[in-house]
Amino acid sequence: MRTKEFKQGRLFVGRLPFEADLLDSIEKYIIEKDITHGHFSIIGALKSGSYGFFNEKTLKYDIIHHKKQCEILSCIGNISIKEGKPFVHAHITLSDEKGRAFGGHLTKGCEIFSAEIVMHELIDAELVREFDENTKLYLWRI
Amino acid sequence: MRTKEFKQGRLFVGRLPFEADLLDSIEKYIIEKDITHGHFSIIGALKSGSYGFFNEKTLKYDIIHHKKQCEILSCIGNISIKEGKPFVHAHITLSDEKGRAFGGHLTKGCEIFSAEIVMHELIDAELVREFDENTKLYLWRI
Amino acid sequence: MRTKEFKQGRLFVGRLPFEADLLDSIEKYIIEKDITHGHFSIIGALKSGSYGFFNEKTLKYDIIHHKKQCEILSCIGNISIKEGKPFVHAHITLSDEKGRAFGGHLTKGCEIFSAEIVMHELIDAELVREFDENTKLYLWRI
Repeated sequence: MRTKEFKQGRLFVGRLPFEADLLDSIEKYIIEKDITHGHFSIIGALKSGSYGFFNEKTLKYDIIHHKKQCEILSCIGNISIKEGKPFVHAHITLSDEKGRAFGGHLTKGCEIFSAEIVMHELIDAELVREFDENTKLYLWRI
Repeated sequence: MRTKEFKQGRLFVGRLPFEADLLDSIEKYIIEKDITHGHFSIIGALKSGSYGFFNEKTLKYDIIHHKKQCEILSCIGNISIKEGKPFVHAHITLSDEKGRAFGGHLTKGCEIFSAEIVMHELIDAELVREFDENTKLYLWRI
Repeated sequence: MRTKEFKQGRLFVGRLPFEADLLDSIEKYIIEKDITHGHFSIIGALKSGSYGFFNEKTLKYDIIHHKKQCEILSCIGNISIKEGKPFVHAHITLSDEKGRAFGGHLTKGCEIFSAEIVMHELIDAELVREFDENTKLYLWRI
């Protein structure tokens, strides 16, 4: 495996703002705290969900919108460098009023009802995303 | 983001008792180990599942029961203080015999078949839940 | 709860190889890095999925194959000792082109499209799996 060894940095626990966009909130937070590398998990609820499915034919994300209250069963992600700036990559699992689960690649468009985050900063190494020919995604250059 | 910085405390890995209630078991465990703040993840299986969906109209959790064997795809949660005592908040993702996933807010009523937990204690800060007017939930006062 | 206390060991972040088998890749990686105990999380995408549901009647895993591109919403797992060797136990949550989530116990047969892993080594204690009469699974002897 292509891998880098990090040290554990700061460890934050907090809540993201009511009615804010989930991905926006994470992005603002890491700028505010000057986090360039890390990993995190979130549980909570959304007023509406939005997530992507990578279409291997078009090589783009198809975006699915879900305009109802839903639980965040998990949202797991990492922070690394893309085009010189800290970049958030996360996947989200949601559930509806019948308990059915759905989700995908976290995109803009998830309106927060409540969101509790555990954020682990990673230090002493660097991971940079660059365009990967196999997948047409920005993956870690290691 | 409203956030607090913690230090990493003790780190436990263990299994929860066969046929016990999942949420009860976590609650007993944190009392036994004197854990007041932390985060954890669980994988395993249940003999029956029970989980909540927050109904934004009634402002209460609708509880869904699932009386069949199911896999625990993930159960992610945290521990903080509510009404003076350590309180467990977790969300669970399950799957059935066809692989379909479902889940919600972890409630009493999940009977353990097997459950493997990684528990991270958090120390040197405090997070207290209090009633939040926007959501009618007990969220962290930060 | 039956539990052991560990210390945090090394912390790796990396990506698993394109078109490799997901479980094989994790197994090869822990041998390469000499990791005997740990826990990890993965997000990414698969070209095909394969996962098990523990059938409490036959006491075996029923395997479900999913021969389509899918997102890895989460794959959470741990590493401990079984029959003298490091052993990977993980559960995977996937989603399809409509956002529907599904998953189960991670088995061979998941072909990687992309996979980003955060691997936490655990040190200074030992967890050994042995046959458990209640579940007919190999659970931790504690």
